[in-house]
Amino acid sequence: MAAERAATKREAIDELLGRLAFDERGLIGAIAQQFDTGEVLMFAWMDRAAVAETLTSGDVSYWSRSRRKLWRKGERSGQVQRLVELRFDCDQDALLLLVDQKGVACHTGRRSCFFTALRGGKLETVAEIVVDPKTLYGE
Amino acid sequence: MAAERAATKREAIDELLGRLAFDERGLIGAIAQQFDTGEVLMFAWMDRAAVAETLTSGDVSYWSRSRRKLWRKGERSGQVQRLVELRFDCDQDALLLLVDQKGVACHTGRRSCFFTALRGGKLETVAEIVVDPKTLYGE
Repeated sequence: MAAERAATKREAIDELLGRLAFDERGLIGAIAQQFDTGEVLMFAWMDRAAVAETLTSGDVSYWSRSRRKLWRKGERSGQVQRLVELRFDCDQDALLLLVDQKGVACHTGRRSCFFTALRGGKLETVAEIVVDPKTLYGE
Repeated sequence: MAAERAATKREAIDELLGRLAFDERGLIGAIAQQFDTGEVLMFAWMDRAAVAETLTSGDVSYWSRSRRKLWRKGERSGQVQRLVELRFDCDQDALLLLVDQKGVACHTGRRSCFFTALRGGKLETVAEIVVDPKTLYGE
């Protein structure tokens, strides 16, 4: 499976949207996984517009619950996620996005947002900062 | 990282529960990933009791929203998930469970619940049934 840009026609998007079970907020949870390494990068939410925009453009967009707006991943940081393949589960209420993540997925500058682990009864940081967040956001 | 049984002390569980951001329903989303292959198996929900039970027993339990009860994964099918490591994300509102899945994770008899993909504008089943569901549930 190559990391090619996925551009999907409107009718296929509509068929998909008809199959998915959005919750009472109109959202569906989405897991982003690096397509070739299998690393789970992040978990975020999508509304219908985010799913459609992602499939149309080939770059992943989410719904920001805090900012209440569509959010193209990497729009500020440049750390975009190109969609390789969209999958959904047997309940149709969760998405698995196979992506090609440029740089880092986490706003802390780590590759994955899942960087805190419970090991030996203690919470440990298990991933290093690989990009200075100041560089990402120009702060 | 070996697939050893994780048995966690109550104080560590309490510290973790204090860190996690459960939603207004008292739930947190959990991604189950096979620890060695990286395969994303399923997405489900946990309440505080499910997190505590999982860490105490070393076998993953979830909260069933439809049955409104704690649900030890594999309690009927025998397809248990042993916990290898629990991680959470930068917002503390999603869990990544590295697990060792016995048999199949999906009630359809497939290894992963994420078996439907959008490929070339069409929805395709991308994983085979490896265990007959009738065998799993004795129907």
